[in-house]
Amino acid sequence: MANSKFEYVKQFEQPDNLLPNTWVVVRVDGRGFTKFAYKYGFEKPNDKRALELMNAAARAVMAELPDITIAYGVSDEYSFVFHKTCSLFERRSSKLVSTIASTFTAYYVYFWSTYFPDTPLSPPLPSFDGRAVCYPAVQNLRDYMSWRQVDCHINNLYNTTFWALISLGGMDATEAEKTLKGTYAADKNEILFSRFGINYNNESEMCKKGSVVFRDYELVEPGALNITTEVDSLPEPVEQSKTQAENDRKRRAKARIVVEHLDIIKDEFWDQRPWLLSNKPGKIPKEPKVD
Amino acid sequence: MANSKFEYVKQFEQPDNLLPNTWVVVRVDGRGFTKFAYKYGFEKPNDKRALELMNAAARAVMAELPDITIAYGVSDEYSFVFHKTCSLFERRSSKLVSTIASTFTAYYVYFWSTYFPDTPLSPPLPSFDGRAVCYPAVQNLRDYMSWRQVDCHINNLYNTTFWALISLGGMDATEAEKTLKGTYAADKNEILFSRFGINYNNESEMCKKGSVVFRDYELVEPGALNITTEVDSLPEPVEQSKTQAENDRKRRAKARIVVEHLDIIKDEFWDQRPWLLSNKPGKIPKEPKVD
Amino acid sequence: MANSKFEYVKQFEQPDNLLPNTWVVVRVDGRGFTKFAYKYGFEKPNDKRALELMNAAARAVMAELPDITIAYGVSDEYSFVFHKTCSLFERRSSKLVSTIASTFTAYYVYFWSTYFPDTPLSPPLPSFDGRAVCYPAVQNLRDYMSWRQVDCHINNLYNTTFWALISLGGMDATEAEKTLKGTYAADKNEILFSRFGINYNNESEMCKKGSVVFRDYELVEPGALNITTEVDSLPEPVEQSKTQAENDRKRRAKARIVVEHLDIIKDEFWDQRPWLLSNKPGKIPKEPKVD
Amino acid sequence: MANSKFEYVKQFEQPDNLLPNTWVVVRVDGRGFTKFAYKYGFEKPNDKRALELMNAAARAVMAELPDITIAYGVSDEYSFVFHKTCSLFERRSSKLVSTIASTFTAYYVYFWSTYFPDTPLSPPLPSFDGRAVCYPAVQNLRDYMSWRQVDCHINNLYNTTFWALISLGGMDATEAEKTLKGTYAADKNEILFSRFGINYNNESEMCKKGSVVFRDYELVEPGALNITTEVDSLPEPVEQSKTQAENDRKRRAKARIVVEHLDIIKDEFWDQRPWLLSNKPGKIPKEPKVD
Repeated sequence: MANSKFEYVKQFEQPDNLLPNTWVVVRVDGRGFTKFAYKYGFEKPNDKRALELMNAAARAVMAELPDITIAYGVSDEYSFVFHKTCSLFERRSSKLVSTIASTFTAYYVYFWSTYFPDTPLSPPLPSFDGRAVCYPAVQNLRDYMSWRQVDCHINNLYNTTFWALISLGGMDATEAEKTLKGTYAADKNEILFSRFGINYNNESEMCKKGSVVFRDYELVEPGALNITTEVDSLPEPVEQSKTQAENDRKRRAKARIVVEHLDIIKDEFWDQRPWLLSNKPGKIPKEPKVD
Repeated sequence: MANSKFEYVKQFEQPDNLLPNTWVVVRVDGRGFTKFAYKYGFEKPNDKRALELMNAAARAVMAELPDITIAYGVSDEYSFVFHKTCSLFERRSSKLVSTIASTFTAYYVYFWSTYFPDTPLSPPLPSFDGRAVCYPAVQNLRDYMSWRQVDCHINNLYNTTFWALISLGGMDATEAEKTLKGTYAADKNEILFSRFGINYNNESEMCKKGSVVFRDYELVEPGALNITTEVDSLPEPVEQSKTQAENDRKRRAKARIVVEHLDIIKDEFWDQRPWLLSNKPGKIPKEPKVD
Repeated sequence: MANSKFEYVKQFEQPDNLLPNTWVVVRVDGRGFTKFAYKYGFEKPNDKRALELMNAAARAVMAELPDITIAYGVSDEYSFVFHKTCSLFERRSSKLVSTIASTFTAYYVYFWSTYFPDTPLSPPLPSFDGRAVCYPAVQNLRDYMSWRQVDCHINNLYNTTFWALISLGGMDATEAEKTLKGTYAADKNEILFSRFGINYNNESEMCKKGSVVFRDYELVEPGALNITTEVDSLPEPVEQSKTQAENDRKRRAKARIVVEHLDIIKDEFWDQRPWLLSNKPGKIPKEPKVD
Repeated sequence: MANSKFEYVKQFEQPDNLLPNTWVVVRVDGRGFTKFAYKYGFEKPNDKRALELMNAAARAVMAELPDITIAYGVSDEYSFVFHKTCSLFERRSSKLVSTIASTFTAYYVYFWSTYFPDTPLSPPLPSFDGRAVCYPAVQNLRDYMSWRQVDCHINNLYNTTFWALISLGGMDATEAEKTLKGTYAADKNEILFSRFGINYNNESEMCKKGSVVFRDYELVEPGALNITTEVDSLPEPVEQSKTQAENDRKRRAKARIVVEHLDIIKDEFWDQRPWLLSNKPGKIPKEPKVD
């Protein structure tokens, strides 16, 4: 039985390769996580187990896909950044997005029992949708990352105050919402401090800043070079010798993938870690920190 | 801290809504499953546990996404068909593809221990990539489904003979490959029968035909109407009354999702189950078969 | 000087092939034609010379591109329909759109002096932008055509009444607009008849119905077959013998391209001219009408 | 007659906005210009009238579309570059491409009689197809421009030698082709010089280098700044005051649009004319050169 009669259907596949020389950000978002969080009794405003499970899944994704240079997560979302020279799957959007969403989900389900040992998963299971966006310039990429981190800050300050009003202040949701309507950051800080003695600055860094995941090398003295400018002006993947590519691969494999809670808006973060934008592995620290 | 400064990055998101009034097929494929199958000792040429795990995951996907009208799976791939009137996620390709890939993966990992109780999963975990393709006419869709089923047949006959030559005939892979080079289906049937006494027709239906997943209603006498013609000429979603939509939703929820191993190339399969193409739920059988 | 160093830039070209087995409508619209019409003193509400120039350009486009089966024009816009089996330029959207826009413009400029012998063109010259849209089912395509013709009717009735109020009724634009605000078709017919003795039905067919351009063959007795159904169920281009293709080409080349002002909303127009949807040339009339 | 019944067809329009912050190159190519050149007796290897007609059309296009910063033409093709901050037509690809192709064609037909006064146009008329490509970095854009100019050089050297062998050397096309097969640039220069006494360097600049079209301001001392770096690192359109925008508009309108035949591969061309990449109008020269 020859298959040629039906093979014409392959013509309906439409290419979706992303524009070369642009940064590709794949973001996954939890589907229906409000309901999901309720089902498994996530703590409010932040459930540390849930955030750490997200981070564990993100780390595993990065370990399986070395083309990812950095990832940033907050709440039930995670953004993965492919370097602008990346040619994985010929940059086909649906392959990149589905692979990330699938791998992330696999680890989320797999690690669940580690972080929630007492509440086993049951259908409907957690799942994540995803999308890919291209950013042409380093500044566009950094502005995307900043946008997510500012969003984290705004939401976390709001949620922290909202839940303080409820759990410590005895309000119901409607009253708390009304109290916060039209308030600025300073007002919320003030409410937390004056009513509940909470200094927002002392809240956990993971909740305030979100989580950044990257391969860790020795920090570089800032100011040594302008990494943004250098990287933007690279028109295409630099042809590497096989030896060089192999060396890079090995160094990348040796590097620890860390989860940190740092300010990624300021230049310092990027200047000290030029490998995030250059995609050239840095120096492996002599005494790796204990995991 | 206002977020407006960075929000311009949202402009880089590009819409990917699929053409209305076309059938959307989302296919997921196992990533690196040759290696994966080897790691977990999948039986050759077919591992029934692995196929049944795929089917269980596919069934769960259909239960969570009622917009899917039919699915077809073979080996490590599964195709899910959204009706041409479907407006889920505004038909955004990346949302549809990532949701299917993620949900399928969640259940694959979740059900693993049911089908492989003695070999627990360990990283790297199984994952699936996906893509969406639009088919304008019913005949295009059916030809796609036929293409996959013919592929199943061709591969399964080849693999069955190949592994018979090895495990029963004592050949190594190179000899088996050489023996099969240039042979037709009839030759392979002959090899199986004359050398090993195997009648290919008696092989399992799941292996020969793959698996079809759909909601089960009472079969319809074929010939009562020409479903293809009727469905093709519908230009857009028929406006339903709320009561009608609610009734349909309920009937769909009541229907059993079955996994069968049938010929989906011939008209009979489609003529007897007009709901697959019309998207109108059929009659719930009075005495549902025991699962 | 080898060119290989720079050739990588070709990788940035992104494919834009339109989905197979769908009807492609390319519509061109005059750019800034309000100003353009004013510059050359177009008559209000309709300038017959301008409309006939549009029609002449559209006819020339169809003569140069036999893949177009029908075109419909009104005011400063023209829609060209490629049959769903068309594979011109591999269905690349930008090639189809730019070729139509360019060819249409070439003839518009070229024929200008025929229709406006006393007012030679001067920069800025007339130009047209374009876009392509795919329609999967015959009914979608016909609904698109109906949409344009209904639009023609609505606009022409409005404009006819508006300009009657001004040129015959002595109103200024603001008064005329106010008079027409909230009126229905019946009201406008009444205004035309009772105030100015104009029976809208007697207005020119070109203005009321727009212009349809197509290859003319002998009309077919309606009812002989259901062309919509037959055409929708064709999954892909029928493989033709070379002789058959050559015969079709010749018959198409012999057919007169006519400009008519007919109702294209009702079935009759399409039933009598099955070649418009089937793409099979009809019978050349024995005694062609004199052009 | 309400139109709402048919308006659903608008949903089939699919957005095609090009990625922000990328350079958009729209290239138009003559359709069937080998045949067209033959019909109107274009001189070989280059017809100066035909090239100057192309240049006149390109200049007119730039005058009508101030968003174009530079254009480059050779033979029957012309590339138009929109600045990466351009938001014309919301960057919709089909609008940009069709507008350029249409406007270019309008002027080509309109100016024809100026450059070919003795051979009036007749159908089939000249037409141009087009496509749009995005380039993220300045270096990508410059490499695109270099690619076209190197192509110009390679083709022109070949054609010059080919036609010398025929018209001066008495060969037929087959002999000339055979003679040139496998030759390098140096070989062709040698053939021209030793056989026909032609020094290729003395050929016309327009034929050797193609034509660059741009707004002319006072040249800038190279080295004052690194324009590429500065421009690449701009993430998005700089918010301008209304006064500033208006000033820019006026200065741009005042600037002469010139056609030159310069080397656009080397840095010098771009360093001396920073406005081409920055999109900030330069100084209007006090004594504009006579056109």
